[in-house]
Amino acid sequence: MTVYLDAMGGDNAPEEIIKGAVLAVNELNTNITLIGKEDIIKNCFASLALSDKNISIINAEQTIEMCEEPVKAVRSKKDSSMVIGASLLKEDKNSVFISAGSTGALLAAALLYTGRIKGVQRPALCTMMPSQNPCLFLDNGANADCKSEYLVQFAKMGTIYMQSVMAVKNPSVGLLNIGTEKLKGNAFAKEAHELLSKEESINFAGNIEPKDLIEGKCDVVVADGFTGNLVLKSIEATLSYMLTMVKGVMKDGFKNSIAGALLKKDLKEKLKTMDPSSYGGAPFLGINGGVFKTHGNSNANAVKNAVRLALSFQKENVLSKMTKVLW
Amino acid sequence: MTVYLDAMGGDNAPEEIIKGAVLAVNELNTNITLIGKEDIIKNCFASLALSDKNISIINAEQTIEMCEEPVKAVRSKKDSSMVIGASLLKEDKNSVFISAGSTGALLAAALLYTGRIKGVQRPALCTMMPSQNPCLFLDNGANADCKSEYLVQFAKMGTIYMQSVMAVKNPSVGLLNIGTEKLKGNAFAKEAHELLSKEESINFAGNIEPKDLIEGKCDVVVADGFTGNLVLKSIEATLSYMLTMVKGVMKDGFKNSIAGALLKKDLKEKLKTMDPSSYGGAPFLGINGGVFKTHGNSNANAVKNAVRLALSFQKENVLSKMTKVLW
Repeated sequence: MTVYLDAMGGDNAPEEIIKGAVLAVNELNTNITLIGKEDIIKNCFASLALSDKNISIINAEQTIEMCEEPVKAVRSKKDSSMVIGASLLKEDKNSVFISAGSTGALLAAALLYTGRIKGVQRPALCTMMPSQNPCLFLDNGANADCKSEYLVQFAKMGTIYMQSVMAVKNPSVGLLNIGTEKLKGNAFAKEAHELLSKEESINFAGNIEPKDLIEGKCDVVVADGFTGNLVLKSIEATLSYMLTMVKGVMKDGFKNSIAGALLKKDLKEKLKTMDPSSYGGAPFLGINGGVFKTHGNSNANAVKNAVRLALSFQKENVLSKMTKVLW
Repeated sequence: MTVYLDAMGGDNAPEEIIKGAVLAVNELNTNITLIGKEDIIKNCFASLALSDKNISIINAEQTIEMCEEPVKAVRSKKDSSMVIGASLLKEDKNSVFISAGSTGALLAAALLYTGRIKGVQRPALCTMMPSQNPCLFLDNGANADCKSEYLVQFAKMGTIYMQSVMAVKNPSVGLLNIGTEKLKGNAFAKEAHELLSKEESINFAGNIEPKDLIEGKCDVVVADGFTGNLVLKSIEATLSYMLTMVKGVMKDGFKNSIAGALLKKDLKEKLKTMDPSSYGGAPFLGINGGVFKTHGNSNANAVKNAVRLALSFQKENVLSKMTKVLW
């Protein structure tokens, strides 16, 4: 198998991606193929004084930026790291492709080149929620309009992923809703609840509220892409707003700066447990290929962790398990 | 006009409600009528050594608890503070009723006794978001299933409230969505966007994301009740999760406890700006009466602020302004 890594995607590319590739080669006993501007990558290896042992490079002249319209960018930039990565995945089903670049463009490229798993109606964007217990949250925005049966498929795919890659036995599945009682929610949520409760191949735990999602009460949490995206953005925005506030207080005047300096290390350590990069990212489930999206601000460690997950995804034959269950 | 105050609702009842009533009488030049168990209220005045000048009491033998099923509780507990308050509002349109008790029961009681403003299709639960700029967020859960035209009514009612009670000139209205571009969102959001852009009586600012809601980018933010409730719960749950984490670090060992003690006051002060009680609550818009819901954990100051808003609500004839616009 080959691990393709988008060297140009994300806020910290290419430095942290390259450092992550080196970490992965050293710690995970794998080869890595970096895709990106060859001269930039080579210069980066030189300036960071890193060894490129077991790392090869495929040149890509273009890069898809975060601000570009996904489908248009994928169609027009055939020589971008992202499009080349997705097309290589199409040629070799036994490979995986990891990128920290634009989520929308990565999904568009994956759909265009590898398509969906047979039987899957819609692929889903996933986030591994950084709670005490890892919790796979999907769909986070691939499908703004969902039919309730899509959520059953999301639940099945999430269950297989958590079992195979995260080694969770009999993963519990929750439906994100405004209350835990069975009849809570809008018409869509009620319909989805009914379908999910009838599905015997999953361990349905009923409705859960945002609090439970944050605390990792279930192993898999499903929602339509509109709701999932808004809830995820609400959590991220609140975290960021509050962090800025706490940091501001810790720098406000001499007394607070001293106290801030004393607390900084422990606080940072603790807040790391809420950091999405700790799990190294999450796959696009439903896509007929191993495509992993890592957070835009991924550091070397997050990249290495994504490689670890991708290796496990392939070793455990997640794609063929999904095809069996969904087709 | 009469200000009726539910003495038995909320986590801190009756002490903080009574203290809030005394503050309001002293600072806002108003009379207050407390509704609740007379002996408990009188004992409370005595034990807190407070003056009951300009405060009268209406006895209510029952209390509706937070855990009760709203409609059932309102129908069966005719002698509860909440039902008595709502029925008094029906008799005297020039009065207001404030409660920190169960939101669902308060809405049910208000709907049952005062009904809706003529022309209003659905009433909405509102929250005054505690951002730098006060921002009225509705619907927060009264209507899990909404038609897009309800959102136009929410926008109109929110505009009148922010103009009249919060003294905001030409309030901007945002639609909560997964992206700011016009064509973003699910089918419902797109339809609502179109209707809102056509509505000339409001100052529509387009789509906004959760980040903008938290930062108070618009004066009024509308959403369907399902989305609004989930986003609000996501923000509250993230805040609470993070607060617990920060507090934990500030108590972890001698060094951190010292630093924590140094920071505590300033941090608390800053976090207060994110505290929903600072605005004293928000009205149920669309209800044919001045009904204000204050946060369940309201303290005396929040209760006083709610009285201030309710007085302004009456003084500015918000109900008749809404009837004019919506009927």
